[in-house]
Amino acid sequence: MKTKVAIIGAGPAGLLLGHLLRSEGIDCVIVERQSAAHILSRIRAGVLESVTTQLMHRLGLDARMNAEGMIEHGFNLADDDRMIRIDIEALTGRYVTVYGQTELTRDLMDAALDRGLPIVYEAGEVALHDVDGERPWISYVVDGQSQRIDADFIAGCDGFHGPSRKAVGDHPARTFEREYPFGWLGILADVAPCHPELIYANGPRGFALASMRSPTRSRYYIQVPQAARIEDWSEDRLWDELAARFDSISDRGVARGPALEMSIAPLRSFVFEKMRRGRLFLAGDAAHIVPPTGAKGLNLAASDVAYLAEALIAWFAKGDAAPLAGYEARALARIWKAERFSWYLTKLMHRFPEDGAFEHRMQRAEIDYVATSRAMQTAIAENYVGLPL
Amino acid sequence: MKTKVAIIGAGPAGLLLGHLLRSEGIDCVIVERQSAAHILSRIRAGVLESVTTQLMHRLGLDARMNAEGMIEHGFNLADDDRMIRIDIEALTGRYVTVYGQTELTRDLMDAALDRGLPIVYEAGEVALHDVDGERPWISYVVDGQSQRIDADFIAGCDGFHGPSRKAVGDHPARTFEREYPFGWLGILADVAPCHPELIYANGPRGFALASMRSPTRSRYYIQVPQAARIEDWSEDRLWDELAARFDSISDRGVARGPALEMSIAPLRSFVFEKMRRGRLFLAGDAAHIVPPTGAKGLNLAASDVAYLAEALIAWFAKGDAAPLAGYEARALARIWKAERFSWYLTKLMHRFPEDGAFEHRMQRAEIDYVATSRAMQTAIAENYVGLPL
Repeated sequence: MKTKVAIIGAGPAGLLLGHLLRSEGIDCVIVERQSAAHILSRIRAGVLESVTTQLMHRLGLDARMNAEGMIEHGFNLADDDRMIRIDIEALTGRYVTVYGQTELTRDLMDAALDRGLPIVYEAGEVALHDVDGERPWISYVVDGQSQRIDADFIAGCDGFHGPSRKAVGDHPARTFEREYPFGWLGILADVAPCHPELIYANGPRGFALASMRSPTRSRYYIQVPQAARIEDWSEDRLWDELAARFDSISDRGVARGPALEMSIAPLRSFVFEKMRRGRLFLAGDAAHIVPPTGAKGLNLAASDVAYLAEALIAWFAKGDAAPLAGYEARALARIWKAERFSWYLTKLMHRFPEDGAFEHRMQRAEIDYVATSRAMQTAIAENYVGLPL
Repeated sequence: MKTKVAIIGAGPAGLLLGHLLRSEGIDCVIVERQSAAHILSRIRAGVLESVTTQLMHRLGLDARMNAEGMIEHGFNLADDDRMIRIDIEALTGRYVTVYGQTELTRDLMDAALDRGLPIVYEAGEVALHDVDGERPWISYVVDGQSQRIDADFIAGCDGFHGPSRKAVGDHPARTFEREYPFGWLGILADVAPCHPELIYANGPRGFALASMRSPTRSRYYIQVPQAARIEDWSEDRLWDELAARFDSISDRGVARGPALEMSIAPLRSFVFEKMRRGRLFLAGDAAHIVPPTGAKGLNLAASDVAYLAEALIAWFAKGDAAPLAGYEARALARIWKAERFSWYLTKLMHRFPEDGAFEHRMQRAEIDYVATSRAMQTAIAENYVGLPL
């Protein structure tokens, strides 16, 4: 098979890139290791910046998001029993949209056939070849048959564990990583959210997050030690813990229901500053990971892809190589700012086992300061709603 | 001797408190371990918040400060060769005044006799007695003679090493401390400052500060390892280092001259949350230390004293004990915010030996963010100029 752009990965990054290229008539093919059902079973973030919703508007794939997405004009930081509302609309004139990554992915997948965007699912042994040359290609196996796609460019949208970053090579001096000494234990359930807006809470028992995917679907998290095991947590134990954190500060208290999903995720900051090798470009989690605090992961993938699509379109439309040459620097400038904000909000709202009494007081003083400073609330809000492209 | 308030320490905290009480006709006596000449030989901070200058205005002791102080409408953060000007006047409508602590201290000392504020210098073996009772007293030795002052209250303005905090007792659960893994090597010289406004610089060689005490007197600092010794630094070596940091980014470059003073100071954050025991009240460095980054030390002493004077005046004028009961909480609320800012600016602008590559990038990303965000610049400016009383 031959195409203009071979895209590895059918997550939001790959799907958005594919649709953006197709909307300009550029042929591309997405190759995905998993099945569509598996991708849609993954529970991910649910807060979209306008950078992300505008891509869906531009693609004309926003009907369900417009109908079902929840506009959020603010969110809350809680410190013990004090709630600090960050009025993002008043502070920035903008807002965010609560719409699950799973739903956005489904919308993009559902439209692929109509838009002439082929997706090869369950492609095993994906490998990248000749990325330094003029005609890179990828190989993979479907139903036991080896396949090959020749392309002008390869887009590595295959996440943290995919083969694309490895194909760029080892660049230890351009690899930046931090693991956090805790994880998030999450639960998804079809119950009404305890509060109309998200609550990020910091208390003596650690961090907790009350969020939602829709008016009838709640998503909660609590901070757990790095060594915590999911087997040690019953649903009841987790609901009890959430009730202890949120019943006193939320509008309605925590409603309980059977878990649709319950799991522990580690928290990591990661940036691979080499987002290009020859004709291979990385976007999204393939190049960077943020801790989930602040919900920047999907939105950062979307801004990478907006830059990359623009650059590829300039190449194919006008033979202009400059935007492709500038892609890495442009993407990294926004990535580092989002990494900073995710790291800041993670540090502000979690209990770190290595912190001493002084550091705890600094954390409390920071929250006190946020509570009283419009400038600091604006700084938080403008990052939460998404820095400009 | 009998008085209303026995004040221990003739630094800015004790002197300001004494004058504020005297201006309401309340008798007080200051007892100081050092000579006046020794106090005036100490080189300290030189950036006054309006909280501090307004106390001098209110006391009518502002003539020389008005004439010689330099109004500063902004200051600079430098990251390698990039200068970020924080326009504090545009961002906050306020400004700071450059006027050396030594000069302010001199003005307060010079006015003491006229205002009926006795100061006992070179008082040895100062000790506090009966602070839990109705008539506390202090004892000390001058010229080999034991002396005693009975008072209604004792104000401990005797700095980090004075006897007052010890007289409050040990309160480990209310003591918060952080030492930083570096010190500041400072030089004072009668040369024109390299730049019209302060420059806080962070670079591969660590932190450096270009500041001034007057249009003809410069004060510079550089970050040095905790183990650095003053003997290892010649004036020439330090000037060379300062030229390397500031010649490329400052208006005039670093002018050299003989050092009036050159020393290494450690950096520490410290808060003793117990600012009262019975009739003894602590103010200033006796209760808290900030690292010098951001110049909060003197200004925090001034706000402590503003609160304490108000409370003592309410007691003596109206027999109202409530302001004295509220002093500690009121002072600590502002102290923790200033501690947070000093810690933040210290972390932003220094190289920490324990930081890894990721943390360095977070520091750079924070500076990048400050460079582009009016909200974040406002947050920094409103702290620099001083949070409201």
